[in-house]
Amino acid sequence: MSAGRIPPQDGFHMSPEAFRYYGRAVVDWIADYYARVESYPVLSQVAPGEVYRSLPPEPPEHGEGFEAILADIDRLILPGITHWQSPNFFAFFPANTSGPSILGELLAGGLGVQGMLWATSPACTELETRVLDWLIEMLGLPLRFRSDGPGGGVIQDSASSATLCALLAARGRATDPRCSDQGSDGRLVCYASTEAHSSIEKAVRIAGLGRHGLCRIAVDERFAMRPDALAERIAQDRAQGLLPFFVCATIGTTSSNAIDPLPAIGEVCREAGLWLHVDAAMSGTAAICPEYRYLHAGMALAHSYCFNPHKWMFTNFDCDCFYVADRSALIESLSVLPDYLRNRASESGAVFDYRDWQVPLGRRFRALKLWFVIRHYGIEGLRHHIRRHVELAQEFARWVADSTRFELCITPPLNLVCFRHRAGDAFNRELLDRLNGGGRLYLTHTILRNRYTLRLCVGQTYTESRHVQAAWQTIQETAAQLERQRMILGAPRGNRTPNC
Amino acid sequence: MSAGRIPPQDGFHMSPEAFRYYGRAVVDWIADYYARVESYPVLSQVAPGEVYRSLPPEPPEHGEGFEAILADIDRLILPGITHWQSPNFFAFFPANTSGPSILGELLAGGLGVQGMLWATSPACTELETRVLDWLIEMLGLPLRFRSDGPGGGVIQDSASSATLCALLAARGRATDPRCSDQGSDGRLVCYASTEAHSSIEKAVRIAGLGRHGLCRIAVDERFAMRPDALAERIAQDRAQGLLPFFVCATIGTTSSNAIDPLPAIGEVCREAGLWLHVDAAMSGTAAICPEYRYLHAGMALAHSYCFNPHKWMFTNFDCDCFYVADRSALIESLSVLPDYLRNRASESGAVFDYRDWQVPLGRRFRALKLWFVIRHYGIEGLRHHIRRHVELAQEFARWVADSTRFELCITPPLNLVCFRHRAGDAFNRELLDRLNGGGRLYLTHTILRNRYTLRLCVGQTYTESRHVQAAWQTIQETAAQLERQRMILGAPRGNRTPNC
Repeated sequence: MSAGRIPPQDGFHMSPEAFRYYGRAVVDWIADYYARVESYPVLSQVAPGEVYRSLPPEPPEHGEGFEAILADIDRLILPGITHWQSPNFFAFFPANTSGPSILGELLAGGLGVQGMLWATSPACTELETRVLDWLIEMLGLPLRFRSDGPGGGVIQDSASSATLCALLAARGRATDPRCSDQGSDGRLVCYASTEAHSSIEKAVRIAGLGRHGLCRIAVDERFAMRPDALAERIAQDRAQGLLPFFVCATIGTTSSNAIDPLPAIGEVCREAGLWLHVDAAMSGTAAICPEYRYLHAGMALAHSYCFNPHKWMFTNFDCDCFYVADRSALIESLSVLPDYLRNRASESGAVFDYRDWQVPLGRRFRALKLWFVIRHYGIEGLRHHIRRHVELAQEFARWVADSTRFELCITPPLNLVCFRHRAGDAFNRELLDRLNGGGRLYLTHTILRNRYTLRLCVGQTYTESRHVQAAWQTIQETAAQLERQRMILGAPRGNRTPNC
Repeated sequence: MSAGRIPPQDGFHMSPEAFRYYGRAVVDWIADYYARVESYPVLSQVAPGEVYRSLPPEPPEHGEGFEAILADIDRLILPGITHWQSPNFFAFFPANTSGPSILGELLAGGLGVQGMLWATSPACTELETRVLDWLIEMLGLPLRFRSDGPGGGVIQDSASSATLCALLAARGRATDPRCSDQGSDGRLVCYASTEAHSSIEKAVRIAGLGRHGLCRIAVDERFAMRPDALAERIAQDRAQGLLPFFVCATIGTTSSNAIDPLPAIGEVCREAGLWLHVDAAMSGTAAICPEYRYLHAGMALAHSYCFNPHKWMFTNFDCDCFYVADRSALIESLSVLPDYLRNRASESGAVFDYRDWQVPLGRRFRALKLWFVIRHYGIEGLRHHIRRHVELAQEFARWVADSTRFELCITPPLNLVCFRHRAGDAFNRELLDRLNGGGRLYLTHTILRNRYTLRLCVGQTYTESRHVQAAWQTIQETAAQLERQRMILGAPRGNRTPNC
């Protein structure tokens, strides 16, 4: 196509014909990939440095044909892929996707607009505003988050960024929109449960709140934040001259899918005048089903909220939906307006410039993929698949509960099952290594009540009953093998801790 | 496809056949879009709220066919698009893209991997590491930024995020990796020129450095930072008990493409022990050409650096390449390790987990598109098109210089021309409004030496000589029209300032 020394008329660009041809090739490659994805080890089995070393050390002086590039995907890249889109992916939380979402990403890439300001593509902003308003209805969120009141929604790359933005808006409200003269002077304090996501700690550190800027609140027997402990700690901190200003509650913690009690936490925040942010990254999606709408009880008292369609709503990473009840607090914290960004539309006050709702300046047209997904599935289709995932996880949990070898660590609220073999931490650690090394499935672990715990999350788009059955079969067989080997080698091996 | 009430065997998912079929349709749609892009007004002409109101107020209960969705792209979305990929887009800085980049985005969307950890897709991390090492050679950057030494590169969403990460790493080094016990106590000070990008102010605010956390340094007659003023101010601040710790120098400012003198600034930073971050978001790309390699003179004294392939290297937004000379400073500032992310590979110390190099936890496989672009064009092809853009801008600048109506505001160093009509601010403001309202091109403005200034940046992938010629023709004709009208209406209209 473009390797000659004498540049063709239009230089080295891919011709429209070549784009059509290779575009089809990539679409077909993806369709073929989904057809054969179960044939690969779910967790990549390459060694550190293997992919890096397989790539040429020098950049190419001359252009290459697209066939060569596509061939290298199979040859060099696929062995280094951990297959998040395999129906046997049960690790972490999913980052599921779907046909309409991939095509939405493609279209966004083709349009190549950058929606930092309303004017730089009004549709990029207004489609996002509309779809995020739709989701308020779909999830049963308070109407005050809607864009036609003082609130509004925006797509962030991730819940980490949403939490950071919420914290910055809350800090702005607690001090002064431009931060206090003294900077944040080490007296501001945020609260989250001991089980809340690591992103809250990262946000506190980024915001420069200092080592004591985050206070972790104790949880109950279901790993949910204890509102009494929260209230007590806020009072103590106030008494010591600190400035409590922000609480992050979680709907579906990463370790165990715990649901913090929003109504009681909301009351504590209201009484104490604190900003309540709700991180529903994983489990918010479930509220699309009326029977899980209870997850959002108490949301009326929240100041901000986020959930991730890129986890469990068939929408490519990255797509986190972030809402604020009072958008002015967010905008005042993040808006900086240089001359070169001034424009008539922004100054009219009639538009949203989403650059002021996020950390980066630029932004992709991410609303397209979300719109495609919602229109393709409809509320009906989304509910169907979410329910199915929960059913499959609950079925797996029953098998665990009925087993003599394994035990449930907690009754799973939704689609995450936390379980362990009864033989102790070292055994479970080794079991997990073998399972993931075997390639037939991918699980991850956590620590619950100081014990090594396996996690199985059902959320990949194409996971069906047969995959969960096969996973349980593999887990049982691998455990049985390991039990036999330990009998031979002499159990227990006690403190052997290869992995932590 | 999926609108029935009785879910088909595999639920509501798009079938593989439908994906292939509609995938081709979207690829063709994009190819057609590029063929007709010049027929649309470059700047969208919709009114605030028009797109929002055109979309249904209620989310769809049932799924819809993909044809309906695609038809709505033409009907509802296109009128609200500002066409960044039009060859008549001369506004801001470009966010140019290309065929191979769009296909790289598509493939990344299809694979749907999330590369937060090395283990969650080794190829996602190692391809990125390799391609970023390539770019060190391509741009003539210091070898200490390479991944095989203490440094390394990573893709960020934008230069805003890169600057924030650099600032956080520098703060960590200046205080304590986990921030000081007191938080950042209002004594830390960053420096950037009065012309540096607004993202530095946003980063300072996010990091909670307080109102006095950023000091703007005076510029010379070419809008470049004055190293003597920097040194003086650092000494003054030290004398007042403040803690200078970070300087952001710019290679290609947004207003005027000014090039800060890195060698002298680097010396000031070295002597004072400050972290030097170089923001080459726009102009770093030019260093691929040996004749512009001088832009990076002095880089040996920098601690971090970023440039944006998503601006001027034919790679879809988002793709900022960010380098640090000492990756440990960055990682110590951003790493938080909960149990659920622990894994054998990370603990071996033999891999990069890029989650610790950025604000969010999750990350897309952005290296694919960058790899596709470099391989498709080769160094040769990239140089060809960069040179061509600079030539076209320089040609435009000569037309302006030779004109009696217009004047250059500064000799353009590369591909950004700052110019104005001699009739004053109000005239230029109205001229810009008319030009952008006419739809044949899109320009933006800035303020230079307190005067309203038009900016024309040549950087869109498909901009050729005929587009720049037509732009100059349109600008002259529109100015002539406006001159005539003002003669009739009685010039000057002095302080009429509709736009600022």
